[in-house]
Amino acid sequence: MANLRWIRNLAIFLILSNFLVFALLLDLSALHGYAQLAERVRIYETMRANILEKESNNQLGGRVLLNAKERVVNELIMLEKQHELELGLKNISHFQVAQHFFRSFEKIGNTTLFQNLKTMPKGGVLHAHDMALCSSEYLLSLTYREHLWICVAKSETQEYKMLRFSLLQPQHEESCEWSLLSELRQSVLSDAVDKKLLAQLTMYPLEHFPNEDTVWKRFRSIFRLVVGLLTYAPVWSDYIYKALEEFYADGVQYLEIRSVLPILYDLSGGNYTLLNTTRVMRDADLRFRASYPDWIGSRLIYAPTRKVSDARFVEYLGNALLLKSHFPDYFAGFDLVGWEDEGRPLHDYARELLALQDEIHFYFHAGETNWYGTNTDENLLDAVLLGTKRIGHGLALLKHPEVLQLARLRNVAIEINPISNQVLQYIGDLRTHPASVLFAVNYPVVIASDDPSFWKATPLTHDFYMAFMVIASRKADLGLLKQLASNSITYGAFSGNEREAAFEKWHKRWNQWIDNINTKL
Amino acid sequence: MANLRWIRNLAIFLILSNFLVFALLLDLSALHGYAQLAERVRIYETMRANILEKESNNQLGGRVLLNAKERVVNELIMLEKQHELELGLKNISHFQVAQHFFRSFEKIGNTTLFQNLKTMPKGGVLHAHDMALCSSEYLLSLTYREHLWICVAKSETQEYKMLRFSLLQPQHEESCEWSLLSELRQSVLSDAVDKKLLAQLTMYPLEHFPNEDTVWKRFRSIFRLVVGLLTYAPVWSDYIYKALEEFYADGVQYLEIRSVLPILYDLSGGNYTLLNTTRVMRDADLRFRASYPDWIGSRLIYAPTRKVSDARFVEYLGNALLLKSHFPDYFAGFDLVGWEDEGRPLHDYARELLALQDEIHFYFHAGETNWYGTNTDENLLDAVLLGTKRIGHGLALLKHPEVLQLARLRNVAIEINPISNQVLQYIGDLRTHPASVLFAVNYPVVIASDDPSFWKATPLTHDFYMAFMVIASRKADLGLLKQLASNSITYGAFSGNEREAAFEKWHKRWNQWIDNINTKL
Repeated sequence: MANLRWIRNLAIFLILSNFLVFALLLDLSALHGYAQLAERVRIYETMRANILEKESNNQLGGRVLLNAKERVVNELIMLEKQHELELGLKNISHFQVAQHFFRSFEKIGNTTLFQNLKTMPKGGVLHAHDMALCSSEYLLSLTYREHLWICVAKSETQEYKMLRFSLLQPQHEESCEWSLLSELRQSVLSDAVDKKLLAQLTMYPLEHFPNEDTVWKRFRSIFRLVVGLLTYAPVWSDYIYKALEEFYADGVQYLEIRSVLPILYDLSGGNYTLLNTTRVMRDADLRFRASYPDWIGSRLIYAPTRKVSDARFVEYLGNALLLKSHFPDYFAGFDLVGWEDEGRPLHDYARELLALQDEIHFYFHAGETNWYGTNTDENLLDAVLLGTKRIGHGLALLKHPEVLQLARLRNVAIEINPISNQVLQYIGDLRTHPASVLFAVNYPVVIASDDPSFWKATPLTHDFYMAFMVIASRKADLGLLKQLASNSITYGAFSGNEREAAFEKWHKRWNQWIDNINTKL
Repeated sequence: MANLRWIRNLAIFLILSNFLVFALLLDLSALHGYAQLAERVRIYETMRANILEKESNNQLGGRVLLNAKERVVNELIMLEKQHELELGLKNISHFQVAQHFFRSFEKIGNTTLFQNLKTMPKGGVLHAHDMALCSSEYLLSLTYREHLWICVAKSETQEYKMLRFSLLQPQHEESCEWSLLSELRQSVLSDAVDKKLLAQLTMYPLEHFPNEDTVWKRFRSIFRLVVGLLTYAPVWSDYIYKALEEFYADGVQYLEIRSVLPILYDLSGGNYTLLNTTRVMRDADLRFRASYPDWIGSRLIYAPTRKVSDARFVEYLGNALLLKSHFPDYFAGFDLVGWEDEGRPLHDYARELLALQDEIHFYFHAGETNWYGTNTDENLLDAVLLGTKRIGHGLALLKHPEVLQLARLRNVAIEINPISNQVLQYIGDLRTHPASVLFAVNYPVVIASDDPSFWKATPLTHDFYMAFMVIASRKADLGLLKQLASNSITYGAFSGNEREAAFEKWHKRWNQWIDNINTKL
C-alpha cells in the first residue's frame, strides 16, 4: 500500500508536469482502486485538459502568437466561423461546406467570413496550372476577339471541341466542323453560344461524373478546348497578366505556375519555341511587378505530361536545363502532370532524374490517388528519395508512415488543393480530407487551388475557406490562417534573400489588413 | 574530400543496415554532388527497397509467418485479389469495391474471393447491434407469425411504421392505422406487402439520403419498425438463436452483441424486465454452444442510448451492475449508442463512469463523426481516459495524435465497420477509409459489421472483403486476414483461460479451412 502511494504520487507529478506518456506507462488504471473518486476525477480532468492543450499547441498554427490587434480580428473571424459551424452541427443539410463545391460555392461566397478571407493577405499559391488560372468570364471575353474559329462536334450534342485563331478556316477535323465563332454567334442566339461555352469551360454540372475515370476525361476535354484559345501569342500574354491580376485581387502576392509550356502560334505562322512561351510569361510578370510594388512575383515550374516515352522524357529534361540557363530567376523547377494513376511512375525515370537532381529542383505531384500499394501511391516514396522540394497533393501520404517520416525529416511541404480533390472525386465530404491529420501534427503544408478556373473558384479564397472551416479543427483560429500564409513563403521557390524580401512584402500587407479591420470596428 | 568519403561510407553503411533515419540525418543530398551516378542509383534503389520492405513488415499482418499450406491458399487468394484490382486499375467504373455498397454488394457476393472469405474462419464479431443481426429474409418470415399487427401511415406514402403482436388491436396511434398483417396480405397483394416490408427493413435505396441527418432518421425508422416484431418474447428467443446460426454460417465463432435490452412482451401481458431480455439471449447462446461445439460463445455489451437525462443515466449504470451480478459470464460490459453527434458527450458522465470503472468494462463508441474539434470527436479522449477496452468506430482518431498515442499505449483496439461507415455517409469511396492508416502502422483493429441486416450484408464477410480489397494495401495478403481474425480473439472480452480456449477453437477451424482448400486443389 505504501509502495502504491509512492507510485501514485509519482504518476500525479508526471501528469501535472505534462509527461503524460510516462505517467501512462505507470499504468494509471492500477491506481484506480486506491485513489478516491474525487482524486480520480481530478486526475482525469487534468489529463484531459493537458492533452487537449497539447493537441491544440501542436497543431498547425498552434504556436502562433497573436498581438492585440490580431486578437481583435481573431475574435471577429472566430465568431463567424463558429456561427457557420453551429448551423451545421444543428442540421448538416444546412451546412454548405460539407456539400459538394458545385452546390455550395455561391453560398460560401456570400458569407462574411469569406469576404474577410478574401481581403486577407494569404501569401502565395504554390500549386496552380497555366490553363486553369483565370475566371470563366475572362475566358469568355477572350472568345470575342477577331479571327477566332470554333470546331463544333458533328454528333447530336454539338459540343464545342476546339478553338483556334486563324485568318482562314483551320485544317479539317474528323469529328467536328470549323466555323467562325462570330458567325456562329450570328446564326445561333449569341447568349446560347456563350452559355454553352461557359458550361464547357468548367467541370459543371456534378452529375456527369460518377468516378475518377469520367472526371479526368472531362478534365482533358476542357484542356483541349482552351488550348487553342490561350496559346494564340497575343492572348497568352494578356491571359498570364490577367491571371496575375486576378490572383492579386484575391489576396495573393506570389504565384508558382506549373506549365506544360505549350508552343504559341499567331496568324502569320510565326515560329515559336517553349522559350517564347516562357518569355511571354516572364515579361508579363515583370510588367506586373512594375505596376504593383507589393507583388512578390511569379515563377515557372515546367511540368510536361507524365505519360510519355523515355526519349520524350529525356527531351523534357533537356528543356528544363535550357529554361534554367535562359531564365535563372523565373524558372523554379520541374514536375510532371496528368492523371497520375494512368501515367508512368517516377520510378521509371529515376536514373535520369538522379542525374539532374543537383541542377534542377523538383516539385513533384505524387500520391494524388485513392489506391494503396500501387505505383501511384509509391510515387510518394520516389518523389522524396529523388529530393523533391515539395509534394503536390500527397493524398496517399498517411498510408506510407515511413515516407511520411522521411518527408518530414527532409522538410518536404505538401501542397493541399481541397476543392480540386473533391471535384476530381478523390474526396467526398471535405471534412474527411486527410490533410486534417497533417494539420493536427503541424506537418508543413500550403493551401493551393490547382485549377480554380475549371470549378469557378476564386484563385485561393475558396480553398482557404475550406481549409479553415472543415479541414482544420473547429477551434483552429487566425493563428492557423497566418501559419498557412507564412508557410507559402517559407516553402516557396526562393533563395535566401528573396525569401526575406517576400516575407517583408507579405508582413506589410498582413499588418495593413489587421489595421484596416481594427479601424472599421 | 576525404572527410566526405568517410561520411558517405557511413551513410551507405547505415542505409544498408536499414537505419534509414540516421542516414537521412547525415543529409544524403549533400552527398549527391560527390557520388557517381551509378552509386547514387544504387543508394536510391537500396533505400527504396528497404523502405518498402519496412512498411510491408510494419503493416497489419506484415509479420505473420505463413506455413507451406497457408502459402498455397495465399497464392490462390492473392491471384483473385490482384485480378479484381487489375480490373479496377484499368477502369475504375468496373471496380465494384470503390462504388457504394448498395450498388456493389451482389456483384461482390459473386466473386470467387468472396466465396473463399465466406468459408474462412474469421474469429469473432465484436461490434454488432441486437436489432440488426439477421437477414431480411428471416425477418420477413417472422412477419408471417400469428397475431402480428401492422401500423400503416395515414399519409399518402402509406409506409409501415410499427409492428406488434397482440390478440386485440393495439392501442390507437396518431399517425398510423393498425390492421392485422395477415388481413393486409389478403386485401393487398401479398407480394406487394412483402416487397414493401423488405424495403422498409433496410436502408435501400441509396438516393433517399443526401447526408448523415437524413440517414440517421431513416436508421431510426427501421429500429422503430422492427422493435415490436423482435421484442415479442417468443420471437426474441428464436431471433437471437437465428442470429448465432447466421453468424456461424458466415465463418464467425464468437459474437459480442450490443443491446439496448428492450423489455419483452407477450400476448398475455406478461411482466418482463431487462433481466428477462438478457436471460433469453444467454439461454439462446447456451443452447447454441451445446449444438455447435466449435462455437466459442456470445456475450452482451449493455448499450443503452446516449441521449438521456442524468437520472436515467445513473439508472443505466445500476442496470449494468445488476446484469454483471446476474450474468457474470455473459455480461461483458457497458457502452452507449445512438447518433453520437446528437447525443450527450461522455465527458458529461465522467464522474459516474469513473466511479464504476473498476467494476464494469467499457466498450465505448467514440469518434463516429466527420466533425473535428467538437464534443463528438473529443469523446475519443474521454473514452481512453475512462479506460475503455476498445473503441467503436473511432473515425476521428487520426485527427487526435495524442489520443492515438495514448490509445496505443493502453492497447485499446478499434472496431472498424467499413460498410456501416459508408452507408451512414461518413465515408464515400471505401479506399479513403482512415483505417488504411491504422492498418499501415499495425494499430490493433478488428473488423465488424455493426448492423448488417440494414444493408443486406452478410454477418461479416462483406466487411472483411472491403477491408482486404481496399482498406488494406494491394499487396496485403493472407497474413493480414489471419491477423484480423486473430485480433478479434485477442481483443474479445475474455478472461485469460477463456481466451486460450477461444484461440484453440479458432485455430482448429482455421487449419481445417487451410487443409480443405489444399485438398481441393
